Amino acid sequence: MPGFKGLAVPGPTNMPFEIRQAMDVALEDHRAPDFPDFIKPLLADLKKVFRTETGQVFIFPGSGTGGWESAIANTLSPGDKVLTSVFGQFSYLWVDMCQRFGLDVNAIEQDWGKGAPLEVYRKHLEADKEHKIKAVLICHNETATGVTSDVAGLRAVLDDLGHPALLFMDGVSSIGSIDFRMDEWGVDVAVSGSQKGFMLPTGLAIVGVSQKLRASMDLIFDEGLDNIFARHNRMASAVRAGVTAWGMETCAQGPEWQSDTVTAIMVPNGVDANDVINTAYYKYDLSLGAGLSKVAGKVFRIGHLGWVNELMILSALGGAELAMRDVGISFQSGAGVGAAVDYFAQTKSQVQMAAE
Amino acid sequence: MPGFKGLAVPGPTNMPFEIRQAMDVALEDHRAPDFPDFIKPLLADLKKVFRTETGQVFIFPGSGTGGWESAIANTLSPGDKVLTSVFGQFSYLWVDMCQRFGLDVNAIEQDWGKGAPLEVYRKHLEADKEHKIKAVLICHNETATGVTSDVAGLRAVLDDLGHPALLFMDGVSSIGSIDFRMDEWGVDVAVSGSQKGFMLPTGLAIVGVSQKLRASMDLIFDEGLDNIFARHNRMASAVRAGVTAWGMETCAQGPEWQSDTVTAIMVPNGVDANDVINTAYYKYDLSLGAGLSKVAGKVFRIGHLGWVNELMILSALGGAELAMRDVGISFQSGAGVGAAVDYFAQTKSQVQMAAE
Amino acid sequence: MPGFKGLAVPGPTNMPFEIRQAMDVALEDHRAPDFPDFIKPLLADLKKVFRTETGQVFIFPGSGTGGWESAIANTLSPGDKVLTSVFGQFSYLWVDMCQRFGLDVNAIEQDWGKGAPLEVYRKHLEADKEHKIKAVLICHNETATGVTSDVAGLRAVLDDLGHPALLFMDGVSSIGSIDFRMDEWGVDVAVSGSQKGFMLPTGLAIVGVSQKLRASMDLIFDEGLDNIFARHNRMASAVRAGVTAWGMETCAQGPEWQSDTVTAIMVPNGVDANDVINTAYYKYDLSLGAGLSKVAGKVFRIGHLGWVNELMILSALGGAELAMRDVGISFQSGAGVGAAVDYFAQTKSQVQMAAE
Amino acid sequence: MPGFKGLAVPGPTNMPFEIRQAMDVALEDHRAPDFPDFIKPLLADLKKVFRTETGQVFIFPGSGTGGWESAIANTLSPGDKVLTSVFGQFSYLWVDMCQRFGLDVNAIEQDWGKGAPLEVYRKHLEADKEHKIKAVLICHNETATGVTSDVAGLRAVLDDLGHPALLFMDGVSSIGSIDFRMDEWGVDVAVSGSQKGFMLPTGLAIVGVSQKLRASMDLIFDEGLDNIFARHNRMASAVRAGVTAWGMETCAQGPEWQSDTVTAIMVPNGVDANDVINTAYYKYDLSLGAGLSKVAGKVFRIGHLGWVNELMILSALGGAELAMRDVGISFQSGAGVGAAVDYFAQTKSQVQMAAE
Repeated sequence: MPGFKGLAVPGPTNMPFEIRQAMDVALEDHRAPDFPDFIKPLLADLKKVFRTETGQVFIFPGSGTGGWESAIANTLSPGDKVLTSVFGQFSYLWVDMCQRFGLDVNAIEQDWGKGAPLEVYRKHLEADKEHKIKAVLICHNETATGVTSDVAGLRAVLDDLGHPALLFMDGVSSIGSIDFRMDEWGVDVAVSGSQKGFMLPTGLAIVGVSQKLRASMDLIFDEGLDNIFARHNRMASAVRAGVTAWGMETCAQGPEWQSDTVTAIMVPNGVDANDVINTAYYKYDLSLGAGLSKVAGKVFRIGHLGWVNELMILSALGGAELAMRDVGISFQSGAGVGAAVDYFAQTKSQVQMAAE
Repeated sequence: MPGFKGLAVPGPTNMPFEIRQAMDVALEDHRAPDFPDFIKPLLADLKKVFRTETGQVFIFPGSGTGGWESAIANTLSPGDKVLTSVFGQFSYLWVDMCQRFGLDVNAIEQDWGKGAPLEVYRKHLEADKEHKIKAVLICHNETATGVTSDVAGLRAVLDDLGHPALLFMDGVSSIGSIDFRMDEWGVDVAVSGSQKGFMLPTGLAIVGVSQKLRASMDLIFDEGLDNIFARHNRMASAVRAGVTAWGMETCAQGPEWQSDTVTAIMVPNGVDANDVINTAYYKYDLSLGAGLSKVAGKVFRIGHLGWVNELMILSALGGAELAMRDVGISFQSGAGVGAAVDYFAQTKSQVQMAAE
Repeated sequence: MPGFKGLAVPGPTNMPFEIRQAMDVALEDHRAPDFPDFIKPLLADLKKVFRTETGQVFIFPGSGTGGWESAIANTLSPGDKVLTSVFGQFSYLWVDMCQRFGLDVNAIEQDWGKGAPLEVYRKHLEADKEHKIKAVLICHNETATGVTSDVAGLRAVLDDLGHPALLFMDGVSSIGSIDFRMDEWGVDVAVSGSQKGFMLPTGLAIVGVSQKLRASMDLIFDEGLDNIFARHNRMASAVRAGVTAWGMETCAQGPEWQSDTVTAIMVPNGVDANDVINTAYYKYDLSLGAGLSKVAGKVFRIGHLGWVNELMILSALGGAELAMRDVGISFQSGAGVGAAVDYFAQTKSQVQMAAE
Repeated sequence: MPGFKGLAVPGPTNMPFEIRQAMDVALEDHRAPDFPDFIKPLLADLKKVFRTETGQVFIFPGSGTGGWESAIANTLSPGDKVLTSVFGQFSYLWVDMCQRFGLDVNAIEQDWGKGAPLEVYRKHLEADKEHKIKAVLICHNETATGVTSDVAGLRAVLDDLGHPALLFMDGVSSIGSIDFRMDEWGVDVAVSGSQKGFMLPTGLAIVGVSQKLRASMDLIFDEGLDNIFARHNRMASAVRAGVTAWGMETCAQGPEWQSDTVTAIMVPNGVDANDVINTAYYKYDLSLGAGLSKVAGKVFRIGHLGWVNELMILSALGGAELAMRDVGISFQSGAGVGAAVDYFAQTKSQVQMAAE
């Protein structure tokens, strides 16, 4: 069908044209004598995105899952005790992987729609007088429910108790999009993927694939990390204003949990959220994110991370309105888009923020 | 700035990704022995877009203006009488070119916002008993005001009077987007450019530039000309519904003139339309069309031709709402987008039309 | 510097323009309802390239090394006995990986420049009356030395002895370029990467990265696997004719070992092969492969796999002549290229082969 | 067929990957408020390529022919006298165009293979005491025969005689590739096209097609005009060395006429040059230039302008050897390539020149 295909899922994100251009190159020899001249500054720049000076960032071909496998294989041993929490599909899958590696996992159950319960972590850590817990795991941004957790708070708990466990953080859908400070928060291992805030294809193929990640770094530093975080907050707030105007609710049960990169929207009882998603996809060329596992059929998700601007938010909300009308959800046509227009009009635009 | 750049002007139009891909090729030798195998079917397919079996379609590097220069130079001589009408910037520029070629031009003046006045053409042709008028010119789609004229009606006038003048038609922003039938309407010369309904770059560089026009033909025939026309009507109707919901008016003074490829929207007195356009461009990365000449500052234009779909219309309307709010135009936020949502929801979608 | 950059290394290979075009797409949602329509036929086509009907081919983001890690992790357990042979850098690295996985490795040492010694394999297998050897490993095409081994022969040994060990084959630089028949040869596990015969970027990022592998499959089947194998043999033979005309020798010690995808060329005593490689790279924009480990400084390698034709072979030989002259190697200028011209002229061209 | 397609014709030239990348952009609004920020520096840079400070360079969609039509239409009138010379297909076509514009053309006939005869120009200009000759035309680089003429010498003749005629120069296949100095040589009108030394697609589509010409300018200035001219001389000299080694001759009858951008090579009597060309094209994917008009069938041409380096020259010579052998021309295989290797080895490389 004619026209742009809307991509409003929480990853892969919209790939900037600059990156498409940068990828349109012939393959190069990864053993060429000047290859290090390309790769070394890239690794240095990656450290700036992770906001670490003392740490080191590695890149290799693999998915986010592959990143976690490599992190666990290189830091923990079968039988090691780890403490984590589950409140969505991705924090759940992480527990599953830990068990397959033979770790002894203590997984705190939490309602889907809430974030990591620091007080429960504290209780378990306090009880672990012998420091048998080798690592504490936290999912920074649970993509399945659109929930962000307080990682700095968890570090404070560890410090407060003087507990030496390593702090592992899943940052797949957060790093590069919402505020993350590896050194300041005392995170020991943080994993991300190429297909979210880095706005690259899935799979992070770096060896021999030229300057594409370079282009991503350039875009990130051109805009500035703080501007990126502010822009993500602006886009997310407009989406949430639209959801409220429709008379609907987010899966995240309170403003303290609401993610700035993805919003999971609860459909009314009696409506199958997948009908909204399929109508949007087949009739209006708009990809919306599906609900996973416990919230399957109950939510659809709008991803608002990476290369997004006001027009794309209006278009995602407008497309969602088209699809929701078609499946019989009641609301005032244009109400969601109008609320976003109002929000944008009353707050500082990207241009204004950049000028300050 | 991050995100897609909206392009809602009446040309150049949004270039389909398929065409971008098709253009990403190495240059080829235009004297290669198998070059005709590429170019001949292309010319045959172009005839189908023009809906002519007896005519011939030429392509060469040049703008639409260059197309007209070549058409005049090859069919008329200095001193030849031509009859035309002026009701916008592009019909005006055509008169200017005819005069530079030394033609004897009779240009009927018409209000900007109306189309070609057939009855006035008839009066002049009736009076021309000696058939000194060699050519009758008509602008099918006046891009400056968003007005479509009745070309078939003008042919009927000529036939009715038995007048032998050639019928010349400016189809730069109509051919390939709205209904045009070269043979059925008895059009002798029709000129178009690559950057509108053909969704190609400006300049129609065909010799030696590979298959890019090929990709355009494929897209056009894949969708089907009638589906393309219906889609353009659907998009235009939604834009007009939005304009009405804002409490504003189009420059085209009546439904019989309203163009399906571009809508010129009158801003309220006291507002400079260029403020809307500049705000949209610099603050929201949205290109809207400016008013030209007589309507400069009074209208902004939304182009809705070429590679457009529902999401892009909602996004152009939404972006216009953002810019109009910022410059102080009063309307209910979301009203224009909401009216378009309603229009789309109540009428057949592209998918449904394609399935019939 | 102006002009094409020659890439005559044994991978990454020259990426066809068709694949560059196919990769120039927006990212798509890997959870889209029609995603399986794209991926399923792709997996079916991959089976045809591996020439297996009963087997299954998997793809995931990772390097060839990642492919081997996954194969070992899913089929063997720590302590399992495996039998393999070492005659180059890549067969050596494989042994190293097996040991890191805790396998009990018996590695037959063989001269670098020869292939897998089937008679030694036979001796070990015969002695293993209790069938403790769980897997027999063989490197089909040792990229470091340009040596191809007889995998079908190793299967015959296993069958002859009735030994039930699994047959593992490293096909990173062979599959898709030289003859390989998974079912017929009874290979149980074969691993390849995207950056060699598949002519894709390193890293095989398949999930959510659209149709690029699709384009690779199309190219492979358009040409036909047997034609591809014949073309690789033709290119390799011309390179070897050139080497002989220079009065030099290949690392592969006999025609039965010479690889059709890569030729390692021994430089005269007193010459550092890296000087040839650096001169070619910095002065003539030609990437040649370096000697690895035991043959470092003693050989340079010309890769002739993937998207190569006669002109590219002549240009790689010509570029090697330029670099060899500059570092003082004696030979008749043009002799290598001339021998390749003669070879090509006396044998069937690709066009003639395709017409048969 | 697999592999790069060789393009060794005198235009279109090989398009640098940087330009392909720069063209892979969405279309932009040519009325956008910041469009002049892009176009103005571009026009300033073009003046540097023409080496003019007092002149002005225009760009518009059209072929080189279109450029000449526009130049003539805007400077001369029907009946005006012009003096020119004909010694190839392109100087001939120029005379034809002048006659179609109603000019009074005096065309000096010269052997095909020689350049503009300055002494004959002088005789005619001397005889024109009344200065009726309004313009003197000269083809800087006759692409059909590979002949370069002495434009500065013609300016000297005009100055010597105090003749006020305008000096018009066809620089389609010279500007940007071989030395040209508009101001210093006193050239009044010089025309070029995008598809030769500028390494762009045919058709110079500049309005609304973004930064592609920008990328071309950047490449030209990165290398430096003098380095570009030296490189073209180096490539041309190597080709001529190859031709001599084959025992063959160029169409240009003497070193003073030999063009640095294209070499026309005479085939032996009894051989049809088109057989060489067709064999190269269909069997080896190499485009060679054909002989035009008077030299049709007698020459094939190797273009060596634009984005070319040593490897590409060796590959064009090698491909010509393959095709010449196939059609039965006798020569020592590898002799042409070998002579080019020797020439390159004995002279300064691009890298060395750039370092000076």
